[in-house]
Amino acid sequence: MATVIDGKAVAQTIRSEIADEVRLLSQKYGKVPGLAVVIVGNRKDSESYVKTKRKACADLGINSFDIDLPEEVSEAEVIRHVHELNANPDVHGILVQLPLPKHINEEKVLTEISLAKDVDGFHPLNIGKLAMKGRDPLFLPCTPKACLELLSRSGVSIKGKRAVVVGRSNIVGLPASLLLLKADATVTIVHSQTSQSDTESIIREADIVIAAAGQAKMIKGSWIKPGAAVIDVGTNSVDDPTRKSGYRLVGDVDFEEASKVAGWITPVPGGVGPMTVTMLLKNTLEGAKRNIEQNN
Amino acid sequence: MATVIDGKAVAQTIRSEIADEVRLLSQKYGKVPGLAVVIVGNRKDSESYVKTKRKACADLGINSFDIDLPEEVSEAEVIRHVHELNANPDVHGILVQLPLPKHINEEKVLTEISLAKDVDGFHPLNIGKLAMKGRDPLFLPCTPKACLELLSRSGVSIKGKRAVVVGRSNIVGLPASLLLLKADATVTIVHSQTSQSDTESIIREADIVIAAAGQAKMIKGSWIKPGAAVIDVGTNSVDDPTRKSGYRLVGDVDFEEASKVAGWITPVPGGVGPMTVTMLLKNTLEGAKRNIEQNN
Repeated sequence: MATVIDGKAVAQTIRSEIADEVRLLSQKYGKVPGLAVVIVGNRKDSESYVKTKRKACADLGINSFDIDLPEEVSEAEVIRHVHELNANPDVHGILVQLPLPKHINEEKVLTEISLAKDVDGFHPLNIGKLAMKGRDPLFLPCTPKACLELLSRSGVSIKGKRAVVVGRSNIVGLPASLLLLKADATVTIVHSQTSQSDTESIIREADIVIAAAGQAKMIKGSWIKPGAAVIDVGTNSVDDPTRKSGYRLVGDVDFEEASKVAGWITPVPGGVGPMTVTMLLKNTLEGAKRNIEQNN
Repeated sequence: MATVIDGKAVAQTIRSEIADEVRLLSQKYGKVPGLAVVIVGNRKDSESYVKTKRKACADLGINSFDIDLPEEVSEAEVIRHVHELNANPDVHGILVQLPLPKHINEEKVLTEISLAKDVDGFHPLNIGKLAMKGRDPLFLPCTPKACLELLSRSGVSIKGKRAVVVGRSNIVGLPASLLLLKADATVTIVHSQTSQSDTESIIREADIVIAAAGQAKMIKGSWIKPGAAVIDVGTNSVDDPTRKSGYRLVGDVDFEEASKVAGWITPVPGGVGPMTVTMLLKNTLEGAKRNIEQNN
């Protein structure tokens, strides 16, 4: 049976490490990290995410800045707020909650975030540096960073291992594969254009599987190489009449089956999920340290 | 027996297409593309490359600008020249010949090249856009672009195919794998930290092999999947007492063996080599078209 990686527990450990560092910063410089979130409109999922994030910040001694803008706000107005946050010395990380309403060009808005405050790590310049040997991005994208952190804190070595990333999104699959490559894994990226039989046979050979396809239970237990480390980024809601809510969350991996074969596996929920916000807070801390230490 | 892809012939075809477009630009706007090369010191290989490039420009009606600087030139002075070329409206592409002498920071110099004139496509922002779905770099790096051009002009389809890139350098392996991924191949990157047995078994499964490891004949014919397309970027000189020069060039692939199994294969020399300068000229043309059409 696989070791189930407890993302909540790992996240808790990292959060207390962050809290310690925030305290040190505060003692030494009288300053604490600040994270700003820009939200446009009132999508329910965004609101709940922001609540979680705000509470996490408060717990760790990080300042929260919330910019709530109405659905009808103009693109220019959103950009004006981003510029203000860029200029605010108490803000070390800026996150613009996606998706934005259709009348606003996301790419244009995101490009306006100061590189030094791009705690999401989505700026193409950051991705380019992530891809290139000998270059280092200022921030690593949160979810891929969470995946590698879970591997390393579980004692899974990456160098020379066969790794497969299922999915090639800009926010998870692609940067995760670049990170694994930088960590010296032999990396294969499979995606929607990969045939079913290739997907299966490539996963069968992988020592490390990062599943980020967004398809409920698409990866079967029989595909997993015995002893492999399986990190499941998928969060898919499936109908479940036995629950009050009428649904439950499942990953991209069939956990029941795969946990009998894998060496390590993350559950959904409770695996990568709790780590992602934690990585955002860690990026904010890193941005703050760079900024505060440079200016003192 | 494999179809041997004649890089020289393909390059010739593309060059005459470029010459046609240059003529059109000249007729319509009275302007032609300009390519500037900055060379520091007098390395013999750089000189011969520049001679080739200068002649190719002349043949196609592209203006050449050569900035030859002494070995002892300061970093600031090199950067001053780059800035001048950035500001020169007749220059549409800037190439700084690498390697630079040790006292000059290459990264710093390359970052100074205007993105709109970065015909090498090595700027991290370009690489980031190359990596990201939905984004397009201004220029594709020349050698990877040459590889894909050779495939497409040979009628090799990429979508859904298994591709392996051997090597992960910033100038060939990494961008080639990103390009193949964007073209919907299922891509694996093998490199110096990949075990011998993994390298072999991954190549055996590949429909498309791009070899850019810089190791003479490391890829054996028996590793090639029957019918695969093999693009050999390697240019390794090996001793050959039967030649006047005492050496000859061989690729990363054992051509004799592999050409009996592959569907398509590029020779060395005469495969990717002649295409690389051609892609540089094509990038210069593209940069010029963007610039001239914007300003007219």
